[in-house]
Amino acid sequence: MWGGFIVGAIRVAVAGGTGQTGKEVVRYLSSVENIQLVGVVARTLAGKSMSVVLPELRHEVRIFPDLDELCAQSRPHILVDFTPYEAARRHFYKCLALRINPVIGSTGFSDADAADFSRACSEAALGGALISNFSFGSLVVKQAAKLLAAVLPDTTIVETYPPSKPRQPSGTSVQLARSLHHLLPAAQNIPIHTIRVTGAVPHQEIRFGGLGETVTIAHEVTDRICFGPGVALAVKNIARFKSLVTELENLI
Amino acid sequence: MWGGFIVGAIRVAVAGGTGQTGKEVVRYLSSVENIQLVGVVARTLAGKSMSVVLPELRHEVRIFPDLDELCAQSRPHILVDFTPYEAARRHFYKCLALRINPVIGSTGFSDADAADFSRACSEAALGGALISNFSFGSLVVKQAAKLLAAVLPDTTIVETYPPSKPRQPSGTSVQLARSLHHLLPAAQNIPIHTIRVTGAVPHQEIRFGGLGETVTIAHEVTDRICFGPGVALAVKNIARFKSLVTELENLI
Amino acid sequence: MWGGFIVGAIRVAVAGGTGQTGKEVVRYLSSVENIQLVGVVARTLAGKSMSVVLPELRHEVRIFPDLDELCAQSRPHILVDFTPYEAARRHFYKCLALRINPVIGSTGFSDADAADFSRACSEAALGGALISNFSFGSLVVKQAAKLLAAVLPDTTIVETYPPSKPRQPSGTSVQLARSLHHLLPAAQNIPIHTIRVTGAVPHQEIRFGGLGETVTIAHEVTDRICFGPGVALAVKNIARFKSLVTELENLI
Amino acid sequence: MWGGFIVGAIRVAVAGGTGQTGKEVVRYLSSVENIQLVGVVARTLAGKSMSVVLPELRHEVRIFPDLDELCAQSRPHILVDFTPYEAARRHFYKCLALRINPVIGSTGFSDADAADFSRACSEAALGGALISNFSFGSLVVKQAAKLLAAVLPDTTIVETYPPSKPRQPSGTSVQLARSLHHLLPAAQNIPIHTIRVTGAVPHQEIRFGGLGETVTIAHEVTDRICFGPGVALAVKNIARFKSLVTELENLI
Repeated sequence: MWGGFIVGAIRVAVAGGTGQTGKEVVRYLSSVENIQLVGVVARTLAGKSMSVVLPELRHEVRIFPDLDELCAQSRPHILVDFTPYEAARRHFYKCLALRINPVIGSTGFSDADAADFSRACSEAALGGALISNFSFGSLVVKQAAKLLAAVLPDTTIVETYPPSKPRQPSGTSVQLARSLHHLLPAAQNIPIHTIRVTGAVPHQEIRFGGLGETVTIAHEVTDRICFGPGVALAVKNIARFKSLVTELENLI
Repeated sequence: MWGGFIVGAIRVAVAGGTGQTGKEVVRYLSSVENIQLVGVVARTLAGKSMSVVLPELRHEVRIFPDLDELCAQSRPHILVDFTPYEAARRHFYKCLALRINPVIGSTGFSDADAADFSRACSEAALGGALISNFSFGSLVVKQAAKLLAAVLPDTTIVETYPPSKPRQPSGTSVQLARSLHHLLPAAQNIPIHTIRVTGAVPHQEIRFGGLGETVTIAHEVTDRICFGPGVALAVKNIARFKSLVTELENLI
Repeated sequence: MWGGFIVGAIRVAVAGGTGQTGKEVVRYLSSVENIQLVGVVARTLAGKSMSVVLPELRHEVRIFPDLDELCAQSRPHILVDFTPYEAARRHFYKCLALRINPVIGSTGFSDADAADFSRACSEAALGGALISNFSFGSLVVKQAAKLLAAVLPDTTIVETYPPSKPRQPSGTSVQLARSLHHLLPAAQNIPIHTIRVTGAVPHQEIRFGGLGETVTIAHEVTDRICFGPGVALAVKNIARFKSLVTELENLI
Repeated sequence: MWGGFIVGAIRVAVAGGTGQTGKEVVRYLSSVENIQLVGVVARTLAGKSMSVVLPELRHEVRIFPDLDELCAQSRPHILVDFTPYEAARRHFYKCLALRINPVIGSTGFSDADAADFSRACSEAALGGALISNFSFGSLVVKQAAKLLAAVLPDTTIVETYPPSKPRQPSGTSVQLARSLHHLLPAAQNIPIHTIRVTGAVPHQEIRFGGLGETVTIAHEVTDRICFGPGVALAVKNIARFKSLVTELENLI
């Protein structure tokens, strides 16, 4: 029987759990101790089981047409959200009203959106997470890049994605450039080269130049399951917060 | 005693032989059997010996202020030229008049210049070479790239040079793109990404994408002596021609 | 209704079609015009439909427990085989007996096995294919590598795979080294470096060194669907042969 | 006139200053304010001027046959040493006796040697530096690698050098592996792949693997002048110490 309560487990729902990233997050969370997946929100396949998407899933996870129906049947503590901008925005405010902690992995939010979310979380005294990239690799690459830029300040970003990638440059590159450029001597802008190659996996390269030497740090995402551990980290820790968290490292 | 005749040797002068590329070409040619270096043309250091620039040179090679003085003292069969555009152009026509085969490695010539040179060589029935890149690596990379573009047609060029590189993109990339684009299904233009990083060595990358796979071919120039073998090839074979040669592979 | 005849189509079965590579080959072949998938052979999931493995498959493809049952219901012209060594060997001889062209992508066959298969195909006057790597990228990389090794003969192979890769070094690297080493001046052995990194995608690198320059050619497999086009090529052309084909390029 | 005293400048001699690395260090130090080069120790070219090796040097720097003669004429505050093992060892003890701070960039010293040097410096209450790699890039790569190994613990080192590199693997890789392996969960040994390619520049790569992602950090030395800034840092700060310093970061 799905939806039964597991004592002590964190009850998690995943909105957008049938999408490319969402399903890998479901796959990962389903294997984490003390996390119980209570349902997925997805318009297509609503009413079916996630085993249609992930045949090897060991627990039954039902797909609901919207968050209301999911909550009516099996209310989560936390909503992990990988739906597009509009839906994710709507889910966020509904979560606050229902005292569910939102953990948002959707992209496309502006600085103004983040400020709105931050104010709303603080007013509600409820923890929420808005994290543009949940992979541990991207977290530690950003930290390493800061070290490198301070010593070898001629910094360039070279990103490679398949042509299906909608944004040019990617949000990851834009954020990375923003987090590095004030470390550079003249706070100059960091060039971003956006390469699109059929068949490529997402590849983020930061090149640093100095006198007679160069250093390159490259991050390659080979499977979207890489976002799982960061989402699990957020799921386990977000209830401790009373405000919006926007950096993965603040969740550690 | 410098400048003495060596029986059977090809007598070669190098214009621009004290420059960054020129001196490596002198270094290489000085070690090739059957090639005799009769002098270098360079305004700075004129009157001195090349041992000032290349202390380990085993033969004495004198530096002349211009081609006329060099020819007056020690006339070459072949002039290898790495001087800037204007000087190289002047030398070319002087060579034809003196029945010296010009082998030009200088860059910056337009298609119209090449056509002029070609006409002049044919009228004089004298072999000349105008080769934008004398390295064997660049030659074979171009050949391999043609193979790859035919099978994996989503082709992109990514070049990296130190910031001192004057042209953006480099002549090598422009020529490479030109030689590949008619192989592509819709004869589309090939994107060229021009990256400039302090401390980098010249690095030419061609990326090819296909269904579920990518191939990258990368050429790195780590020492300008790589241009030596191609120049030596031209020196040895150019006398057989009665016209202008513009592709290194035609000299093999 | 599955299994109906499509006039003019090549009827193809895929043994091992539920495996990691097999299912991508099924996915690809299902989209190719003039190819009709008549069934998959796989012990697990036998009796079910391939839609369990590939939910987005547009045509019904049934999974059979063995080749006999598949042939009893829906006899193919061609058997594409990605099963392990023992099963693939058995299937091969059964195919010859049934006048079905075997197209084998399974690995692990020795030179002696290949010689046995070759003799059997020739005696039966039936075309068969035993191809260790069906990707077009690997085909053209091998061709390019031959060009490069001839000019820059200091050749080294560096392969990277996830730790799950069973063989060290991979069959691909061993075959590549074999096909290159007689091109090298002293026919020396080519070093193969076998790197295993968690999370990596299969990555084959061949590095070539010369005087003052290096060339690297790298092949990255990012999705096993890259084997599809080569299998489709074999499926379309193998019936023209009366012997065993072991090189993808011979099928073009 | 060479050898005159410059008030307030640090007087520096370079042993091994005509070698491949030594001459680049001389080139760099000659351009640093408040550093005065008082001489080079080198058996070949003794009695001559460094302008034979570095024609563009703006100050006269004389080459001495040994340290005694140099000190007799122009005693330095600091000896920078890039001579081979035996000579560097001898110079070290002579420096302590003469109260000259030794800054050693020579390689090949064992842990026992380092312990001897450390004891001797402490007894003499004199600062000395024994640094295996003076480049800022290698310093910051080591720091970044520690960050990365802690998060993505499947760590592998891949080094590429030209075949002339004497040690396999390089001291840099061995030290890097040593500084990382206690960060790994089971303190496992880190594999080092040693690639030798004609024409390559020194290239150190550290690859990190995690679930569905990899990170690579690569350091390329394109000109030995990269060691200059680290040597200058040691020259400026070593007098503050009363013991042996073996990590570049401790000199900052």
